[in-house]
Amino acid sequence: MLSYEEALAVVLSSAQSFGQETIKLEQALGRVLAEDIFADRDYPPFNRASMDGYAVIAADFENDIKELLCIRTILAGQICKEVIKPGECFKIMTGASVPGSADAVIRIEDTALGQLENQVNFNVSDVKKFQNIALKGQDTLANTLVLPKGTRVTPQVISTLASFGKGKIVVEKLPRVTIISTGDEIIGVDEPVSEVTIRNSNQHVLRAMLMAFKIEKIKLKRIKDNKRQLFEKLKKAVSNSDILLMSGGVSAGEADFVPEILQEVGVEKIFHKINIRPGKPIWFGKKPDGCTVFALPGNPLSCQTTFKIFVEPFLLRCFGSKTPEMFRFQMAAQRTKKTNLDEFFPVALYGTPTQAHQKKFNGSGDITAGLFAEGMAWQRHDKIILEKGDNVDVFLF
Amino acid sequence: MLSYEEALAVVLSSAQSFGQETIKLEQALGRVLAEDIFADRDYPPFNRASMDGYAVIAADFENDIKELLCIRTILAGQICKEVIKPGECFKIMTGASVPGSADAVIRIEDTALGQLENQVNFNVSDVKKFQNIALKGQDTLANTLVLPKGTRVTPQVISTLASFGKGKIVVEKLPRVTIISTGDEIIGVDEPVSEVTIRNSNQHVLRAMLMAFKIEKIKLKRIKDNKRQLFEKLKKAVSNSDILLMSGGVSAGEADFVPEILQEVGVEKIFHKINIRPGKPIWFGKKPDGCTVFALPGNPLSCQTTFKIFVEPFLLRCFGSKTPEMFRFQMAAQRTKKTNLDEFFPVALYGTPTQAHQKKFNGSGDITAGLFAEGMAWQRHDKIILEKGDNVDVFLF
Repeated sequence: MLSYEEALAVVLSSAQSFGQETIKLEQALGRVLAEDIFADRDYPPFNRASMDGYAVIAADFENDIKELLCIRTILAGQICKEVIKPGECFKIMTGASVPGSADAVIRIEDTALGQLENQVNFNVSDVKKFQNIALKGQDTLANTLVLPKGTRVTPQVISTLASFGKGKIVVEKLPRVTIISTGDEIIGVDEPVSEVTIRNSNQHVLRAMLMAFKIEKIKLKRIKDNKRQLFEKLKKAVSNSDILLMSGGVSAGEADFVPEILQEVGVEKIFHKINIRPGKPIWFGKKPDGCTVFALPGNPLSCQTTFKIFVEPFLLRCFGSKTPEMFRFQMAAQRTKKTNLDEFFPVALYGTPTQAHQKKFNGSGDITAGLFAEGMAWQRHDKIILEKGDNVDVFLF
Repeated sequence: MLSYEEALAVVLSSAQSFGQETIKLEQALGRVLAEDIFADRDYPPFNRASMDGYAVIAADFENDIKELLCIRTILAGQICKEVIKPGECFKIMTGASVPGSADAVIRIEDTALGQLENQVNFNVSDVKKFQNIALKGQDTLANTLVLPKGTRVTPQVISTLASFGKGKIVVEKLPRVTIISTGDEIIGVDEPVSEVTIRNSNQHVLRAMLMAFKIEKIKLKRIKDNKRQLFEKLKKAVSNSDILLMSGGVSAGEADFVPEILQEVGVEKIFHKINIRPGKPIWFGKKPDGCTVFALPGNPLSCQTTFKIFVEPFLLRCFGSKTPEMFRFQMAAQRTKKTNLDEFFPVALYGTPTQAHQKKFNGSGDITAGLFAEGMAWQRHDKIILEKGDNVDVFLF
């Protein structure tokens, strides 16, 4: 059986783009750029005053001049073609374009109005060239590649796109997803519950986890353990969806015929069962040139964990986006593994420095296990003992 | 002038709820619970088989019995009133309810079918009471408070709400927000740009940052530096909104008359300018029994930072929700402060253990400064030198 890293490599190698589309900037948050974005001009686009004060010629101060004649005021957004002559200054506001002949701004706090009309006194001993000026192009030069293809659109990315005048952008298309839950013990959230049934929580949590990627075209289906019905629904789902997520029906039980029927509807098995805990029974396959299928275990924590460690990296790879850097925290206490599996366990993250504290949980069926955890820590298959203070990778929720 | 912590305390003390409303579970992600949620029943709700195998009476194995007679199969979701007698077993599937008379499950891998009909051979040396059974109530007892008021709805919370049968929940109402940008140098994203104008990015980024809280009723307005127009728009905005976010117009420039007009439309100043960098010129006020106003500085990084360190904690407090635990990482290199201000600087987070690496940036006007940073680190006002290896608080983006 595959280790986590081996299985992940297999999953990622089957990732492919769902196409591209053009959308408005307002809809871009959470999407992934499918075009390289270059700076449309230098940034700052002009020599920008970074303080309210007076634009001056720095050389004027070499001769110990302490007064200048203020000729005019330049507000932000104003074009000033006038030239400052020696002995003169312009009052200037933060964000305004510093006229070409000026090479320093003296902040207003270091000045006072003089006794003569338009006279300004300067209380400064030393004026540095370009002080309080953000120079044209100092942050980014025109035509620099700033946001490469594959960049995920965060609020900060939105800010840059807006600055560059990108009112429309080309992004990766989102997949059509179907989520199917199976199991005779599973009922709907609003249905009356019996002493041996449990409510369907996995569909809701999978849908919520997909929403982080802005995936909203999601079909939800619940199927009883009935081979014929399962065949019909799966056949339809794998034709109409780019991704099929299933929960339940993949362990070795008598009613767990999901793997068999998936293959009947043309989905080729890539792996079934891997060396991880929780999540061992996961089934992964693909219809040639079609739907990718993740059949996730039905236990809530197994389902959430396998989504986190497989489906999320898969989606990012499909979008041409890098998997985010994983955070590594020190273990707050020792943890010994009794298996040779890759183990994942819920952690709370706190302390100075922030440490990973294992949350108590009663196995993967514990519905409250991941509830107040900040992430799932990963104890590698060959790391039998994580000592207190050892660094551990954490998948953040 | 106030330090960051002093100013934050002032901001938080003016927070209040925007009311409550009932919504469907499907719409709950990102919202905040306004009701305490109790477990509707024990979890697990029944003694649940956690493996596929055979339900047995553990005591049968004390006498070195290695064979039992299989009477029937119990699938998940089936009610079984039959009682297992000594010498008998029931085949049982993961997730099924273990019949009352059985007190252990032996996994199928440790068994083989016997030569006689319905005979099962067990290859086990020791059977522990309750092995492979998740006991009724072991995770959570009925009527336990599991999700207190103020809990933010994550995918994991959705999972629990669904399990408890909460198809509808009471959540905190979202505020009506208006975002106003001022400045004659600011133009729309789709407008032609001149050599001294810059495009409006702050409105877009503020809107995107609000969306993390599911706040979508947002009015966007852009106003030139015109007192009369500003007065009319601000008057309307503070009557129609719970929160007004402004960007620009709060430094000391000649055209920066925002503070003056805010007071004219009935908003009482609580503070203006605090000891932080970036973001020093921030203005904060409130209309008695009405709109709360954050006038944020116009520089992109200042605007994003002040939203992160003030508006986000304010919203969480309004919703009755705790501010999330801040992460503390080791500094990857020394950083010396030249001011007595609370300083915030963009950091990339990587390495083993994850460390905070300051990103190069050209001051708060640098449009690309926060772009690929994972967060803003906080160097406290009285901490002049952050040594390499010192722990630093980071506000994650």
